[in-house]
Amino acid sequence: MQKIRVLIVGYGNIGRGVRQAIERNPDMELAGIVSRSPDRVAREVAGACPVMPVAPAEAWLQALHPDIAILCGGSKNDLPQQGPELVRVIDTVDSFDNHSRIPEYFAAMNAAATESGHVSIISTGWDPGIFSLERVLANAFLPGSRAYGFYGLTPRGGLSMGHSDALRTIEGVQDARQYTHAVPTAIERIRNGENPDYCAREMHTRECFVVLKPGADPAAVEKTIREMPGYFAPYDTTIHFVSQQELDEKYAGFPHDGCVVASGKTGDAQHAAAIEYRCVWGSNPEATAQVLVAHARAAVRLSREGRKGAFTILDIPPAYLSLHDRDELLKNWM
Amino acid sequence: MQKIRVLIVGYGNIGRGVRQAIERNPDMELAGIVSRSPDRVAREVAGACPVMPVAPAEAWLQALHPDIAILCGGSKNDLPQQGPELVRVIDTVDSFDNHSRIPEYFAAMNAAATESGHVSIISTGWDPGIFSLERVLANAFLPGSRAYGFYGLTPRGGLSMGHSDALRTIEGVQDARQYTHAVPTAIERIRNGENPDYCAREMHTRECFVVLKPGADPAAVEKTIREMPGYFAPYDTTIHFVSQQELDEKYAGFPHDGCVVASGKTGDAQHAAAIEYRCVWGSNPEATAQVLVAHARAAVRLSREGRKGAFTILDIPPAYLSLHDRDELLKNWM
Repeated sequence: MQKIRVLIVGYGNIGRGVRQAIERNPDMELAGIVSRSPDRVAREVAGACPVMPVAPAEAWLQALHPDIAILCGGSKNDLPQQGPELVRVIDTVDSFDNHSRIPEYFAAMNAAATESGHVSIISTGWDPGIFSLERVLANAFLPGSRAYGFYGLTPRGGLSMGHSDALRTIEGVQDARQYTHAVPTAIERIRNGENPDYCAREMHTRECFVVLKPGADPAAVEKTIREMPGYFAPYDTTIHFVSQQELDEKYAGFPHDGCVVASGKTGDAQHAAAIEYRCVWGSNPEATAQVLVAHARAAVRLSREGRKGAFTILDIPPAYLSLHDRDELLKNWM
Repeated sequence: MQKIRVLIVGYGNIGRGVRQAIERNPDMELAGIVSRSPDRVAREVAGACPVMPVAPAEAWLQALHPDIAILCGGSKNDLPQQGPELVRVIDTVDSFDNHSRIPEYFAAMNAAATESGHVSIISTGWDPGIFSLERVLANAFLPGSRAYGFYGLTPRGGLSMGHSDALRTIEGVQDARQYTHAVPTAIERIRNGENPDYCAREMHTRECFVVLKPGADPAAVEKTIREMPGYFAPYDTTIHFVSQQELDEKYAGFPHDGCVVASGKTGDAQHAAAIEYRCVWGSNPEATAQVLVAHARAAVRLSREGRKGAFTILDIPPAYLSLHDRDELLKNWM
């Protein structure tokens, strides 16, 4: 069987994860990496695969013959511009994760993909992605129920890149990492059949590990953190000042975990019904990458059927994500 | 919006659950019930909806105008015969749950549905159904991982209808109910990253509550239970002899629960990754019914697109199961 040739666009944590995830999928192979910093990436991969500049697309299309491009750039600046451009020349999969702008991004990708006859699967990964799917399934099977998302159920908590980045923008902060913690009693109430109206503070707490710059005022930094709108003001926040060495040694990596939990009733007798989906990732970007790679398989299959336009995980028949064919799925997976 | 008119075929526990589930779905209405015992059903529903005999189909097609039939008969005797006959005249959804015969049943339903131009979604519900979907998703996102199913994680355990029925076939047994219990340490090993080769005994234990007929020999009944191939011989089984009154008072209803759990690795550094999906149902047949009703919505949508043939939950774009339209899903559910 001819392998699916995957192009990685952008080589940060997610791109690195995709490169490693491809090796776990025997029907795929890495066609190459394109980047706006090809020299940096070429040094990092040290000849293991071709590395080319993002533009012009014609060059890598002709040299690398990719079947699908996995877009690993950021949702703020990279994807809104890069996505619609690239889907004009190749099928794409991405993890666009700015929830409030998904309708707008979907429209842009759908227009470009439909016009050029390509397939684009947007906003896949963990959340948005698997968790979106589980929210929709829970609501379909328990109509009227609400599906809640909680993050950081493990003792360590879940590392939030966005909140860590926000801390690093504060004057006097040299480095920082932020762990999100779920409030266990808030989850328990849903498991027990309630559908509460929670505010942010009731669902999660935030824990910051902050390295100060020499001479910085800890009280001023702490005040700035606690009052930061959106990121920390709506939460109960714990702040630890640590040395750079302690941060590097004790708080490395990208662990994350979370659950989707929903409860409802069945029947006239109002029997309790609860659904819970949980993921625990040692590496959040690597897990996101594995979900992206499964969707690359689905995108190629949709494309081979002549489909075009934008899709989300909600539009994909689950069998399209699987390595296994229909006979195997019917025999051993139902 | 015109409501989807649902016909219930067969009125046992699942059929009753479907009738109640339809009321929770504002886009649906009950067209009627057809049964091989229409008099019994008519007495039970007391004029709340039309009740007609299963045959001839022309009669209920003309009188009730159903859009979709949910087949609520048994997998052993009803569905293999009834399914292919009914899908020749109407789109169908069923919960055929004899795992080893799913390929054969799929082939029969696919042939009949394709020939007649109808849609048939087979083998949906809890397991097969949601759990099949979660096994396939876990394996797609964690390639090479195994997805394990455990049942009865709650203290009460999960009521197994099949095993309860098996107990009732034993000479000297007047009534019985069987609860399945998961072995917690077996789940813990998977959560911790192992993919063990378990035999049946290592994953579940079985607990029987048995009412003896007057004069029956408890030792003989106990020996027959413990040695029953397939059902009890492969398990550690606890047997309690109880009175009919105790059985009726303490062990009524159809509670069940279970989880799909899978663990794997991500990246060259072999980061741990674990996925777990859990359902807790106060009423197993009512929960199955809610899943069937969501699939009735999907079947109608597939049919309106001109699709035909047999489908499983693995072939359905998840959005088709949802009450919500694409704009709402993109805006509030991704």
